[in-house]
Amino acid sequence: MGLYSHLFGDAEVDALLSEEVWLQTLLDVEVAIAEAAAEVGLVPVSSVPVVRTAAVAGRYDRDALAREAAEAGNLAIPLVRHFRREVAALDPSAAAAVHVGATSQDVLDTALVLQLRAVMPIVLARAAQAAAAAARLARTHRDTPMAGRTWLQQASPITFGLKAAGWLDAIGRARLALDADARGACVLQFGGASGTLASLGGAAEGMARKLAARLDLSRPELPWHTARDRLVRLACGLGILVGTFGKIGRDLALLAQTEVGEAFEAPRPGRGGSSTMPHKRNPVSSAVAVAAAVRAPGLVASMLAGMPQEHERALGGWQAEWEVLPDLVRLAAGSARAIGEALDCLSVDADRMRANLGAEGGLALSEAVVAELAPRLGRLEAQALVERACGRARAEGRSLADVLSAEPALARVLAPDALARCFEPGRYLGQSRALVDRALAAWTFDGGSDA
Amino acid sequence: MGLYSHLFGDAEVDALLSEEVWLQTLLDVEVAIAEAAAEVGLVPVSSVPVVRTAAVAGRYDRDALAREAAEAGNLAIPLVRHFRREVAALDPSAAAAVHVGATSQDVLDTALVLQLRAVMPIVLARAAQAAAAAARLARTHRDTPMAGRTWLQQASPITFGLKAAGWLDAIGRARLALDADARGACVLQFGGASGTLASLGGAAEGMARKLAARLDLSRPELPWHTARDRLVRLACGLGILVGTFGKIGRDLALLAQTEVGEAFEAPRPGRGGSSTMPHKRNPVSSAVAVAAAVRAPGLVASMLAGMPQEHERALGGWQAEWEVLPDLVRLAAGSARAIGEALDCLSVDADRMRANLGAEGGLALSEAVVAELAPRLGRLEAQALVERACGRARAEGRSLADVLSAEPALARVLAPDALARCFEPGRYLGQSRALVDRALAAWTFDGGSDA
Amino acid sequence: MGLYSHLFGDAEVDALLSEEVWLQTLLDVEVAIAEAAAEVGLVPVSSVPVVRTAAVAGRYDRDALAREAAEAGNLAIPLVRHFRREVAALDPSAAAAVHVGATSQDVLDTALVLQLRAVMPIVLARAAQAAAAAARLARTHRDTPMAGRTWLQQASPITFGLKAAGWLDAIGRARLALDADARGACVLQFGGASGTLASLGGAAEGMARKLAARLDLSRPELPWHTARDRLVRLACGLGILVGTFGKIGRDLALLAQTEVGEAFEAPRPGRGGSSTMPHKRNPVSSAVAVAAAVRAPGLVASMLAGMPQEHERALGGWQAEWEVLPDLVRLAAGSARAIGEALDCLSVDADRMRANLGAEGGLALSEAVVAELAPRLGRLEAQALVERACGRARAEGRSLADVLSAEPALARVLAPDALARCFEPGRYLGQSRALVDRALAAWTFDGGSDA
Amino acid sequence: MGLYSHLFGDAEVDALLSEEVWLQTLLDVEVAIAEAAAEVGLVPVSSVPVVRTAAVAGRYDRDALAREAAEAGNLAIPLVRHFRREVAALDPSAAAAVHVGATSQDVLDTALVLQLRAVMPIVLARAAQAAAAAARLARTHRDTPMAGRTWLQQASPITFGLKAAGWLDAIGRARLALDADARGACVLQFGGASGTLASLGGAAEGMARKLAARLDLSRPELPWHTARDRLVRLACGLGILVGTFGKIGRDLALLAQTEVGEAFEAPRPGRGGSSTMPHKRNPVSSAVAVAAAVRAPGLVASMLAGMPQEHERALGGWQAEWEVLPDLVRLAAGSARAIGEALDCLSVDADRMRANLGAEGGLALSEAVVAELAPRLGRLEAQALVERACGRARAEGRSLADVLSAEPALARVLAPDALARCFEPGRYLGQSRALVDRALAAWTFDGGSDA
Repeated sequence: MGLYSHLFGDAEVDALLSEEVWLQTLLDVEVAIAEAAAEVGLVPVSSVPVVRTAAVAGRYDRDALAREAAEAGNLAIPLVRHFRREVAALDPSAAAAVHVGATSQDVLDTALVLQLRAVMPIVLARAAQAAAAAARLARTHRDTPMAGRTWLQQASPITFGLKAAGWLDAIGRARLALDADARGACVLQFGGASGTLASLGGAAEGMARKLAARLDLSRPELPWHTARDRLVRLACGLGILVGTFGKIGRDLALLAQTEVGEAFEAPRPGRGGSSTMPHKRNPVSSAVAVAAAVRAPGLVASMLAGMPQEHERALGGWQAEWEVLPDLVRLAAGSARAIGEALDCLSVDADRMRANLGAEGGLALSEAVVAELAPRLGRLEAQALVERACGRARAEGRSLADVLSAEPALARVLAPDALARCFEPGRYLGQSRALVDRALAAWTFDGGSDA
Repeated sequence: MGLYSHLFGDAEVDALLSEEVWLQTLLDVEVAIAEAAAEVGLVPVSSVPVVRTAAVAGRYDRDALAREAAEAGNLAIPLVRHFRREVAALDPSAAAAVHVGATSQDVLDTALVLQLRAVMPIVLARAAQAAAAAARLARTHRDTPMAGRTWLQQASPITFGLKAAGWLDAIGRARLALDADARGACVLQFGGASGTLASLGGAAEGMARKLAARLDLSRPELPWHTARDRLVRLACGLGILVGTFGKIGRDLALLAQTEVGEAFEAPRPGRGGSSTMPHKRNPVSSAVAVAAAVRAPGLVASMLAGMPQEHERALGGWQAEWEVLPDLVRLAAGSARAIGEALDCLSVDADRMRANLGAEGGLALSEAVVAELAPRLGRLEAQALVERACGRARAEGRSLADVLSAEPALARVLAPDALARCFEPGRYLGQSRALVDRALAAWTFDGGSDA
Repeated sequence: MGLYSHLFGDAEVDALLSEEVWLQTLLDVEVAIAEAAAEVGLVPVSSVPVVRTAAVAGRYDRDALAREAAEAGNLAIPLVRHFRREVAALDPSAAAAVHVGATSQDVLDTALVLQLRAVMPIVLARAAQAAAAAARLARTHRDTPMAGRTWLQQASPITFGLKAAGWLDAIGRARLALDADARGACVLQFGGASGTLASLGGAAEGMARKLAARLDLSRPELPWHTARDRLVRLACGLGILVGTFGKIGRDLALLAQTEVGEAFEAPRPGRGGSSTMPHKRNPVSSAVAVAAAVRAPGLVASMLAGMPQEHERALGGWQAEWEVLPDLVRLAAGSARAIGEALDCLSVDADRMRANLGAEGGLALSEAVVAELAPRLGRLEAQALVERACGRARAEGRSLADVLSAEPALARVLAPDALARCFEPGRYLGQSRALVDRALAAWTFDGGSDA
Repeated sequence: MGLYSHLFGDAEVDALLSEEVWLQTLLDVEVAIAEAAAEVGLVPVSSVPVVRTAAVAGRYDRDALAREAAEAGNLAIPLVRHFRREVAALDPSAAAAVHVGATSQDVLDTALVLQLRAVMPIVLARAAQAAAAAARLARTHRDTPMAGRTWLQQASPITFGLKAAGWLDAIGRARLALDADARGACVLQFGGASGTLASLGGAAEGMARKLAARLDLSRPELPWHTARDRLVRLACGLGILVGTFGKIGRDLALLAQTEVGEAFEAPRPGRGGSSTMPHKRNPVSSAVAVAAAVRAPGLVASMLAGMPQEHERALGGWQAEWEVLPDLVRLAAGSARAIGEALDCLSVDADRMRANLGAEGGLALSEAVVAELAPRLGRLEAQALVERACGRARAEGRSLADVLSAEPALARVLAPDALARCFEPGRYLGQSRALVDRALAAWTFDGGSDA
């Protein structure tokens, strides 16, 4: 529903996926077919300007096309019929220059490829913007300690920069792979009725070459009317991008919980309010990304389920793709846009991060104490001692430091100030900073910039 | 894309799922809320006419709503804002009568329920029409023999009536269950911010009762903001209906194969042609049903995947439903419509059915010969004898009858004319007719009529 | 993998889904077929004891069966072959009493139905146990206030009893529906080669009736070899149950977060520890339920995707069910078991619940203040005033009460003690208690007991 | 279920996915950890032989591990416990050398990667074998004409070689991509509790480098505990391979239909028979591939659905992968194996292919007639004339040639023998042969060989 297009999608992408653009793209393919046919002498060159004149989407009645598509089984059949009629009205002799050698799937698939070629750079740019925002957060918060969290429980500390670097790393990889998937999908479809281009006789090879050149598309080894792996791979790449942003959206929503309060989507007028509770600041962008990640797997599954397409051109599996792939593109674009916006102006509360780390009386740093004690007591004995102390701290509501400082076995090997140092989170960040630097370097290497 | 709405959907259903109707339904819920609030004395009765006047979808700017929904995270928040402003413009004192006690999800969920209540009878009627067409075929072809087919190989014969009865039986069951699923989903949502209706104080229970009565909806035990099973069950019911029509679509497409040629979607102008091959009669309705059956499982999976919704109202899982459930309704309606049309004017070629049964030299009747011989030779010996004969018939390109008649072991126990009778398909139809009658009776019992 | 059977499954259910039990169930169907055939006089009564003697799973070589199943395409074909041979070895004349009238799918489907009839009561019992535990929590914590949470942000308060009542309500509904789904799926499959039972001649109807009686299964109108809706509906019911427990698992995991700390899976030895961090108490049961809810949608989708089954018996769609449906049963059982265990000994920290409610300086009660002020200032003015105060409280790090008490417009209409009362969570619980009572009553009405 | 392992899987792959191998692989990772720790001086070199001695899967009680995994939440935690105990029993001082710096997910993920590295070459080899068989068919039947089929209707002719070349082309592409996906997934996981390796202090970087070297795995930029895209991409690649074989399986099953009869899976003893019909030759391999293609989309969806993994290590999403990814590997291997076997000894009936082409009185060659007439009558007039003739041929049950030869408009421009030549399928094969050659060349270029 269009009422949710701004929420779940991206305005620029939606514009490229509009009905008007889709019709125009189909007509653009028809023009290229006529041009290529003229180039190899199958139709008179004089027909081409007539064909071009008729190839304007606004000339065609979309309602009529939609109704006739329901009879014909696809949109290209009525469009070719109307288009040929329009050409004939301009110049009857030019009508024979329309749709030479092509089957309707040639036109529909090639137009889809052209549409993807136009729209995928925007999707990728949205992902790059989100990556740049993550990179800025990684750089800014390279040294901001916070609780690591595993199984939704506090674990050994990390830096917020490392968390952002993880997002950056994943977006970068998904984006690069998706770029390759998109390029791989952009191949010409031109095979005629059964894929043999038989109606073109000896002109087939030449015309296919000209058509590919005109559209600046590479030619596949074979027509791919029922070999849909390239499109399915693109769908998978889109699904993985959406899953990547779903992970970030979930992380952000968890960080923004009232009881955690470490990072928020920046408030702005009209954003994230409630219809009844005046205090609410709902993380709308995170919800968009999580919702997309709930939906995308089913859409990818539909694309995969459509793969067993019969013989030379299929019944059902192909038609199943028509609304599903654009939906995936929309969701991927919207998800990237939403997370890009959220990261771009994220309110980060470093004090709260530090405070939360101490929330459970230092339990999150239990491993740090073990690491400190291991060389003195042996790793296993150290582990056992600290595990007992954790239990006592929890049961008695005391801090771990407090319990440990009363432990005679520990007092013998660790001075009080050395014990206290174990509970400084900034001292137990391990490779956090180095990993941030690696992620930033890799991203820069791949052409990223957070300027 | 609207360009495929007629192909994949159903015009009447699509009209009920339009943006205009959706906005109006949301406003209808708001009106009922104001009315119920007035009934229990929370707002002055005089506000209600003002609220009603403002509750006309055409008064609101859909583009603005869509843009603001992207900020707010749902459509109800900006709609309530604009609606309240509109009411206030008519009568400032009436503005407080808007959205009393409700949270935005109350309005969105209840409006969805009202929309489903309006649209599901059409989906069910389309299914009933398809069932009626199947019933007519079952009755008409109760005695028309054709090859049974298992693993896409000819098997013992059936009647075409039995095949149609199988379709009828499955549609009937899916329709009845879906009817129950739809009724089960139509319950009021009214819980306020956290489901407790706390802002209504002591008026809560009374107002909830009035609201349910006004909307003629049953009240659930509890608000169901994050208990989505009723909607998911409806989605499953829709998915099963689509799968049922997918099976019929696949059967029809297989029967219409050039080499089988037993049944065709009746040709009509503009239907099922090719853009390049003059002879084509593509089974468009079957393709629509098969395509829907490729897509629906992914959509149902998305609804299921959204179920783990957090706490009192969710982040992501709920939002994921908004476009998915209407898509499923559209596909189910379109699939039912398409198969209904196909069955309604199916061209059945009973001669071809009979001819195909003999195609492989009577092999499809091998079991009939075993059944005839079993009492004379013992079942296992009969089975072994016929199996050998089948192999020889295939290898030597002879008919099974021919090979068997040269078999001395058989000649001793079976007269030539008795052997010949084994190859009359009409004599080996088992319970075909009785099963047709059972299916028709069950369907009539459930209220079906093929008149 | 069996190594995860205890984690993801349920021991009792797994035992009923074992290979040994599966083989025995197939053989039990064969015995019933022989008995029914004897009853109607198709085979001598004296064969039946021989058939029974041979029908013991332990007599058959599973590896050989598995290898031969790969050739035959299903398990029943080699099993019938070995079984008949075994019978013949005991008494050659009895061999003809084996598999009379049946096709292999009759045996496989009916055995599946018997297996489901045995295993589903356990799945339902696990769900009932979880419901009982939820009911106990609802009753015990009927009056324990806690923060409601929407969009993972604190919202107006609820009681923990209400949250548990929501779980109870959802489990109860999913369980009842699943029970009906399971009963609906338990119908005899008996149609022979093409569903017509032709090889049984005039004995068909009688034998089918006897077979159904022996197995205590109801008879369907028609054989359902390619009408799989009953099984798919069961799969959907299982998926919905898993989704319901997934919601509970997610809620529990969120409540158990270090920063929330309101409820924990009770620790026990070996449970939820970490291999490196001594303090960890991971919510293992919640993870099991969430993981199942991630997986189940895909499995349900596979069942739906298999529905378009060709003609009288299918190629591919049927075979796709064989491992998927048992997997769903396992996941549903494991998920119910895990949540039942978690709820049964949940550690609830009512003090922490109360403390968290005040965590954000009373913002979670903003709606309560609006409700109090609305009759005095008008609803919209009250809303605006409180919204401004929330913003100031957040910006200045003060409590909402503090900011409001300094608000002159408010001081005029609300005495300080009345304002203070707004921030007592126990006073703004709305229908929480009544809803708990409704849920408990409904559950008791459906036969539930938390004793 | 193991009873279907031979049917749906591949023996060699199953062996590598066994519980025994899985445990051993986990232990191999632990050995490498101890070795690397020794190399950087964290533990004494003398511990390593002890660790190696204990690292034998057979020493551990799998039932106990499975039970304890249900408590711990994963298998590594109890395994490390038992392993450390076993090491300690051999030499107490060596126990501290176990699991240094690692978290359980490090071990589980790295072992998974090692298992994938072992098993994926087999999957790829099965795919290569299927490709080689397709290549042989393409070469052998480069010039064998058959009907093209679109929408399951006969279309312009192709050669069977072209159909096989289409299979070859698709397998080749899916295989190459999957190879890259598998390589991309094979990266070390080593991050410790929160991904920072903090417990290793200054030795972290060195030990990680040594560990990667020992296991011959590349190191990722960052730990990927909750960035699962590499595994999900592999799952997608497996799903696409399965979809590719599903398409081939469906084509084969359609070609093997009794009424088509153009190609069969070669019969062999015990293969594809029926339990009741002596003549059946069921296409078992095709069914395996189609069934896998019904199941794989749901499994891929589950992997995608698990992507939004929380924070540093997840609750639910990760656990969901454990059984799903191995299932996908099994299905992909089984699908490749089955189609490889089917293609390898496919019975091709070239006579039947030719006969079927003429089945509908030459309608399948309607486009050839248009192509012949177009230069003489104009394309559109030719199309219209032939379309009328097709209708008449169908209505009157005559051949298209017959109808056309009586057409005066045609007689004027086309001599009878020229018309007759239009109906020789061998003359209207277009680029069929050239496309076969392209596919074979591309495949050879990628290293394929059909010797």
